[in-house]
Amino acid sequence: MKALISVTDKTGIADFALGLEKFGYEIVSTGGTLKVLLDAGVKAISIDELTGFPEMLDGRVKTLHPKVHGGILHIRANETHVATVKEHGIDPIDMVVVNLYDFEGTLKSGKPHDEIVENIDIGGPSMIRSAAKNYKDVAVVTDPKDYQEILERLSNKTLDEAYKRKLAYKAFSLTGYYDAMIGRYFAGLENETFPERTAIGLLKESSLRYGENPHQNAAVYEDAMTTSLMTGMIQLHGKELSFNNLNDLNTALELASEFEEPAVAVIKHATPCAAAIGSTIYEAFVRAYEADKMSIFGGIVAMNKEMDAETATAMDEIFLEIVAAPSYSEQALEILKKKKNLRILVINYNNKKSGLDVKFASGKVLIQETDNLNCEKLETVTTTAPTKAQLDDMKFAMIVCKHVKSNAIVIAKGGATVAISGGQTSRIWALQNAIRNNPDKDFAGCSLASDAFFPFDDCVTLSAEHGIAAIMQPGGAGRDQDSIDACNKSGIAMVFTGTRHFKH
Amino acid sequence: MKALISVTDKTGIADFALGLEKFGYEIVSTGGTLKVLLDAGVKAISIDELTGFPEMLDGRVKTLHPKVHGGILHIRANETHVATVKEHGIDPIDMVVVNLYDFEGTLKSGKPHDEIVENIDIGGPSMIRSAAKNYKDVAVVTDPKDYQEILERLSNKTLDEAYKRKLAYKAFSLTGYYDAMIGRYFAGLENETFPERTAIGLLKESSLRYGENPHQNAAVYEDAMTTSLMTGMIQLHGKELSFNNLNDLNTALELASEFEEPAVAVIKHATPCAAAIGSTIYEAFVRAYEADKMSIFGGIVAMNKEMDAETATAMDEIFLEIVAAPSYSEQALEILKKKKNLRILVINYNNKKSGLDVKFASGKVLIQETDNLNCEKLETVTTTAPTKAQLDDMKFAMIVCKHVKSNAIVIAKGGATVAISGGQTSRIWALQNAIRNNPDKDFAGCSLASDAFFPFDDCVTLSAEHGIAAIMQPGGAGRDQDSIDACNKSGIAMVFTGTRHFKH
Repeated sequence: MKALISVTDKTGIADFALGLEKFGYEIVSTGGTLKVLLDAGVKAISIDELTGFPEMLDGRVKTLHPKVHGGILHIRANETHVATVKEHGIDPIDMVVVNLYDFEGTLKSGKPHDEIVENIDIGGPSMIRSAAKNYKDVAVVTDPKDYQEILERLSNKTLDEAYKRKLAYKAFSLTGYYDAMIGRYFAGLENETFPERTAIGLLKESSLRYGENPHQNAAVYEDAMTTSLMTGMIQLHGKELSFNNLNDLNTALELASEFEEPAVAVIKHATPCAAAIGSTIYEAFVRAYEADKMSIFGGIVAMNKEMDAETATAMDEIFLEIVAAPSYSEQALEILKKKKNLRILVINYNNKKSGLDVKFASGKVLIQETDNLNCEKLETVTTTAPTKAQLDDMKFAMIVCKHVKSNAIVIAKGGATVAISGGQTSRIWALQNAIRNNPDKDFAGCSLASDAFFPFDDCVTLSAEHGIAAIMQPGGAGRDQDSIDACNKSGIAMVFTGTRHFKH
Repeated sequence: MKALISVTDKTGIADFALGLEKFGYEIVSTGGTLKVLLDAGVKAISIDELTGFPEMLDGRVKTLHPKVHGGILHIRANETHVATVKEHGIDPIDMVVVNLYDFEGTLKSGKPHDEIVENIDIGGPSMIRSAAKNYKDVAVVTDPKDYQEILERLSNKTLDEAYKRKLAYKAFSLTGYYDAMIGRYFAGLENETFPERTAIGLLKESSLRYGENPHQNAAVYEDAMTTSLMTGMIQLHGKELSFNNLNDLNTALELASEFEEPAVAVIKHATPCAAAIGSTIYEAFVRAYEADKMSIFGGIVAMNKEMDAETATAMDEIFLEIVAAPSYSEQALEILKKKKNLRILVINYNNKKSGLDVKFASGKVLIQETDNLNCEKLETVTTTAPTKAQLDDMKFAMIVCKHVKSNAIVIAKGGATVAISGGQTSRIWALQNAIRNNPDKDFAGCSLASDAFFPFDDCVTLSAEHGIAAIMQPGGAGRDQDSIDACNKSGIAMVFTGTRHFKH
C-alpha cells in the first residue's frame, strides 16, 4: 500500500506518516514535506523515484504524472484498469494526503499579485480531485484534524467506503472553496461585479443554537472574499451571538456606519426603532433612548465612536441584547461587564459596508450593489425653503429611512428620530402609524423623510395636520404637483432627492 | 506555437482549430475531440504523441503528464524554466482550449451515482488551472463564445496579457463553479446541511435593469444546486421581471405554496397585503381582493391552482405587476394578455420551497433551514375552546403570519385575511396598526394569529375591545397567564402552538 503525502500545512504530518508506516503504508512525498518526514525518521521515498521525472519549474510540476494519477485513478474492481497500470509499471496509490498552498493567507496579507498567483496550487487540487473521484479505492485526506481518526480506523479496520466518501465530500468542499476564492479574486481584478459564472466560498465560523426560530437549525459562515463591518468582530463578553442577533447587528452596523459624527442606532427585529447623532456618544445615546423607550427593550445598540463610562451607566437600567462599538473605555467595560449576558462587541468600522447585497429567493439568487447614496442632489420644490436645521434633520431622517423596511417614513428633530414606521404595504399607513404609534409625541416643527415618492397628497395633508415643517422624498410620482401644492398651502418646505431607497 | 484542444462541448471547435492553424498553431488533441478535428481536416496530433504515454483507464488519465503541464506552466521570462523544459524535451503549449465533462447535466438528468461520479472531470480542470495560473504566457479558452474574438485578436495582434488575464478570470470562475457543484452534491450524499467549508456556485441568468433602486446595478443568478419554486419558471407575457418583482415573487410563491386548497396571495413590498383560500381560485381571489382593495395596486398575485377566465376577468380593472399560477386556461390567458405589461408567469409548485435560507450580513453569511412547521401542536389554554371555523381561521392566519415580517399580526375570517400588520418593533403596535389601518372593517368574530408570544395582556385587551373571538400564538412568555386571564375574562378562545415564526 502506498500513501502519497504532500502538504503545505505540516501540522501533525510526521506522526501521521509514522502511524501509516505501522499499518504497512509506503510513503511517497515531495519537496518540503519529504524533508520533514525524513527528519522525523519516516522511510519516505521521493516522488521523483516514483515517476522517474524530476520535480521541476520551482515546484510548479511535481506530481502531474501518469504514474501518480494512474496510480490514484484506476478502478481496482476493473480488470482492464488493473492490467493497464501493471503493464505501465504504475503502482497503486491508496491514500492521498494533501493540503493546499495558502492562497487565502497570501491574499489577505496583502502580498503582490505575482506572489498571490504563485500561491495558486495546481498539483495539489489535481491529486485531491483524482483521489476524491476514486474515493471507493482511495482515501483522500485534506484536513490534519482527520489524521487521528484515520489511524484509529486503520486500527479498527473501519476505513470503509462510507468513511472514504465522507473524505471525498470534504475534499471537493475544499477544492470548491479554493477555486471560488481564486475566481472571485480574478473577477475583482477585472472589476467584474456580475460574472457569468461565479462561486461564493464560505467557511463555517460556528453552528448556531438555532435560526430565526428554535425549530430551524442554523450556522454562521464567513464569506472568505468579503471584508465588511462584521469581519474580525471581537466579542469581549456575554452570551453566544444568536442568528437573530447577527441579523439585527447587520442593520445596526450599517446604520451606525453612515455617520461621521457620534451616532447611535437602536435595532429591534432587524429594523431601527430609534437613532440619533450628537456631539458626544452619550448625547446621541440619550437622544436615541428618549426617541423610543419601549422598543429598545431587548434591542441592539450600535455606536460609531468609543463607548464611555457615562453612556455605559445610562444603559444600566435597560435590558439590551448587544452593545457594539469601535472601542470601550476601561471604566465603561467594567460597568457593562456587570451584566452577565450582555454581548459586548468590538467593531472595526474601517471595514465599511459590503459592496454587494445577495438575496436567496426560491432557487434564484438576486445580487445587487448596496445602496450607497445619501442625499446627492437636493432640490427644493416648494415656495418655502427649509431652514439649515430642517435640512440637517431631513438628511438625518433620510439616512435612517434607508435602513427601515419599505414603505418607510422617518420623522426627526434635532438629530434624533421622533417616529419610525416601516414594513407597510401602503405609504399613508406608514405615516399614519408613525404618528399613531407615538401618541405622546409633538410633531410640530419636525422634519420627515419618505423612502419613496408620495403617490397622492394625503401624506402631506396628514403631515400638515400634525405641524410637520419639512419633508424630504425622492419625487417622481405622476401627482408630485398635488403634494407640492399641498405643501405650499401649509407652508411646508419640501425637498426632492431624486433617489429612492427601497429596502425589503 | 502549440494549442492543446480537449473539449466536451464541441460547438464551433473545428472552425476554431482551422482558424488557429492559419495563425501557425500546431494542434494537439485528445480522444473524441481529436476525431472531430481530423474529420474536419485539421492537422491535429494526438496527445499520446506529445507525451509518449497512451491515453488510459477509459480516458481517466490522458493529459496529466509533465510534458503537458510543464509545457503549460513554465514561465517564458524565466531562463531556468526555459532551459529546464528544453532539457526534458518539453514543447511550450501556448493555448489551452478545454471545457469540462457535463457534471451538472448528468446530475440534473437523474443519472445514477456512479455515472455522476464518472462525469467529474479531472484532467480538464487541471489543464485549465495550469493555463490560468500561467495566463501571462498561455491563453486559456473555456467558452466557445470566445472563439471568434480570439481569432480576431490573433488577427489584430491583440491577444495581449490583459485579455489573457480576462480569460484566466473566466477559467477560475468555471473551475470554482464546477467544484462548488460537486462539493454540494457530495455534501448532499452525507446529509451535511452545514459543511465546514462550502461554495455556492451561481450561474448568471440575466442582468437586471437595476436593483431595489435605480442607482443599484443588479443581476439574477441561478443557484445551480437548488430546485425551488422559481426554478424553471416560464414567463408567457409582459415586461422583463425586475429585481423587486423577483424578490416579491419569492414571498408570494412561498405563501401560495403553503396551501392544498385553492389559495391566492397578494404581495406588495415583499410582504403579504392579502391572502385567501376558497373552494375555487375565483372565490379565493375575490376574497383576497376584498381584503385589501388598495395595496393590491401594483402588487403581485400568486395562486396555487389554474387561473380561469372568471378570475382573469375579475382582475381586469386592477393594475398588477405579476400574476403567477401553475397553469392558465386558454381563455384566461387571452384575457390577461390584453394587458401589455402584465408579467404572466407559469410556476411549477411541485418544486416546493427551498430547504435552506441564506442571508448575507456584512461579511458573515447566515444559513438556516427554512421555517417548515405549521400548527403542529395545538393546545387550547382558555376556558372557551375555539369552534371548528375559528380554529380553521386561526390556522390560516398563522400560515399567512409566517410570511409577514416580524412583529406580525394577522386577523382572518372565513378563510380570508381581514387585516395584516408587520414589520413592527413592538407587538402592540402590530395589533394597533392592524386595526387602525382598516377603520372600515368589522373585527367581531374574527380570529387572530401572532408570530411570537404576547409579552403582556395588552394585545388580548385590545382584541377583546374589537370583538376578536379567537387567538393563536406560540405562548411561552413569562406573563402568559395574564393573557390567558384576559381571554377568559372576555370569552376569547386562545390556542398555543409552541412554535414561533419570526421572519425578518
